[in-house]
Amino acid sequence: MEITYTPIGHVRSPYDSPADVSHEETDETTSEIVLEEEYKRGLDGLAEFSHAVVLAHLDEVEEALLTSRPPHATDVEVGVFATRSPFRPNPIAQTVVELRDHDGTALRVTGLDLLDGTPVLDIKPYVPAVDRDELATGWLEE
Amino acid sequence: MEITYTPIGHVRSPYDSPADVSHEETDETTSEIVLEEEYKRGLDGLAEFSHAVVLAHLDEVEEALLTSRPPHATDVEVGVFATRSPFRPNPIAQTVVELRDHDGTALRVTGLDLLDGTPVLDIKPYVPAVDRDELATGWLEE
Repeated sequence: MEITYTPIGHVRSPYDSPADVSHEETDETTSEIVLEEEYKRGLDGLAEFSHAVVLAHLDEVEEALLTSRPPHATDVEVGVFATRSPFRPNPIAQTVVELRDHDGTALRVTGLDLLDGTPVLDIKPYVPAVDRDELATGWLEE
Repeated sequence: MEITYTPIGHVRSPYDSPADVSHEETDETTSEIVLEEEYKRGLDGLAEFSHAVVLAHLDEVEEALLTSRPPHATDVEVGVFATRSPFRPNPIAQTVVELRDHDGTALRVTGLDLLDGTPVLDIKPYVPAVDRDELATGWLEE
């Protein structure tokens, strides 16, 4: 069974390669999500939210691995579904971004760690009651 | 441009049709995510987390709308990207679930509001530092 999607738009960011992405600086770096013209009306009302969830297709990922060595924990090898590694069976990135403003089909955000040109699949409002705010635990604490 | 994914598994839940889904009760209802055998190793280490993010393909959705009238706000019509409506250009559900336990390829969770048989695309650990815990605002307050 195959599932097929068409991107609603693309990322415009200062990151041209994975080495350019500074995770420490993404919160201060402004990126844009530029939607195809036909989806413009879908943005109505999003500006009333402070944050959004962005789903994007990591089109530069060519390898699907079942395990990963997470950063900052080099001696741990865990299953890929216990990590945020991009090298996963379906390379979909899920990122919570802060909404800055929008101008037509261009949505300015901070907190996006995606490369320039990455295809965007979906945008949803970030809703704490849905997206939780409890504490989570795991290997990140080690 | 088209993007193609293959499901990593399927939902096994007590919900056979949208009318069966009680959003008030999903936190107490146990569902299972049953992975294909080949992805089993990808679950290693996930049990150490309390919550996970599940991405699933809403395969029963046949309509892609650009606007939606959110529940509990019948006089408001907003863009689909400002809602969690299933009737969206790429019908991907993003749900935060509480992890209960797992047995081989079956992951028992609560908080999943998906129909029995829904194809699952990805599972990621829920990490507060990534998934935020700030307050968000929007039409939900109206």
